[in-house]
Amino acid sequence: MRIYLAKNLLEANQNCADNNRQLLHENKVLMVNLLGSPGSGKTQLLQETFKQFELYRTAVIEGDLFTAEDAEKLTPWCDKAVQINTEGSCHLEAAHIWHILQKENLLSFDLLFIENIGNLVCPAEFDLGENLKVIALSVAEGNDKPRKYPMAFKSAEVALITKIDLLPFCDFSVDRALDDLTRINPDLKVIAVSAKTGEGLNNWFHWLENKLMRIKKSVSS
Amino acid sequence: MRIYLAKNLLEANQNCADNNRQLLHENKVLMVNLLGSPGSGKTQLLQETFKQFELYRTAVIEGDLFTAEDAEKLTPWCDKAVQINTEGSCHLEAAHIWHILQKENLLSFDLLFIENIGNLVCPAEFDLGENLKVIALSVAEGNDKPRKYPMAFKSAEVALITKIDLLPFCDFSVDRALDDLTRINPDLKVIAVSAKTGEGLNNWFHWLENKLMRIKKSVSS
Repeated sequence: MRIYLAKNLLEANQNCADNNRQLLHENKVLMVNLLGSPGSGKTQLLQETFKQFELYRTAVIEGDLFTAEDAEKLTPWCDKAVQINTEGSCHLEAAHIWHILQKENLLSFDLLFIENIGNLVCPAEFDLGENLKVIALSVAEGNDKPRKYPMAFKSAEVALITKIDLLPFCDFSVDRALDDLTRINPDLKVIAVSAKTGEGLNNWFHWLENKLMRIKKSVSS
Repeated sequence: MRIYLAKNLLEANQNCADNNRQLLHENKVLMVNLLGSPGSGKTQLLQETFKQFELYRTAVIEGDLFTAEDAEKLTPWCDKAVQINTEGSCHLEAAHIWHILQKENLLSFDLLFIENIGNLVCPAEFDLGENLKVIALSVAEGNDKPRKYPMAFKSAEVALITKIDLLPFCDFSVDRALDDLTRINPDLKVIAVSAKTGEGLNNWFHWLENKLMRIKKSVSS
């Protein structure tokens, strides 16, 4: 019985995620699902990203168990910040996103981010209907994380190695991370960045803008 | 139906946890459940702790989705290191621990650590039958984590603020953390440490040895 229940839950989520993806496609919206551990630097990365993409209509859906702190932090930098509080649950589901896309009229935007709950395990199992999945890995977390939590890295298109300003003070090798990440997912694009110093951010912005342009083009052609 | 299933799972876990706690009590064993985010410094903290407690019979049960890296790292420093791989599951359960306590004869030891899966959400819901719950919070994670993940901090007896050698390079206030932590859990003991430089570790060792002595005394009296 347990297996059926889990299967049904994941199937229902997948159907809803497929609907979300179709809606985004029809409306030329790029939606990015951003995953990472607690404290991997997701919110600060989004702040810098929204500054760069200020000419687009941007929004963020913030997933947290409690507090609206992240939505409040990002409100000055994007056109809309919406907070979801799961009040204990460990992941977001596609139905949460479907509901908010409609209620907040987010399908009229260009670029949506979902900042997922800080957790390398459960959020990796739930497709939200995003066009792109991006995972943040802070150098303060250590080199073993991709090997210990491979599922989150397997399904991502980009891994951002964050907080590289801390490299001189942490036992972390970017070369080793590159080896591990591309062994887990040979198609993964890896970009090393510091939202604090700005190092590497242009590579990330360039990659993201390219994806945004493709979405616009694919629908209009 | 879903609610019943979850309730039954948690009830079954609680019964098993109570059994574990009874076994530990009868055998004068102190078992500590160590929680924290991925990369919060749990393994390095355990390495230093085992060095300090080398005169006791010590063991660790390592919980990870994949790899035996942490058990391998700690093998030189304790009398036994046992790895559990959940292969995708986000938390340990009391039944895992019950099985290993028996199979590995861990009830003949003095001090057992469970290094739980790096995750601030799901492991907080599952009592493993431990005598003490300890949570690690790295200064690289940021001040908002206790407010965003209060459940893990509510049920702990000690919060270790780890990696304080990184304080000069991170936006983290120990005073703010103290305020937040004691608001969430007024009985929480907070100790700031660096396993790298050794700063603060004696406070942690002293607290732990005191608990160990009490366990020995309470049973023999």
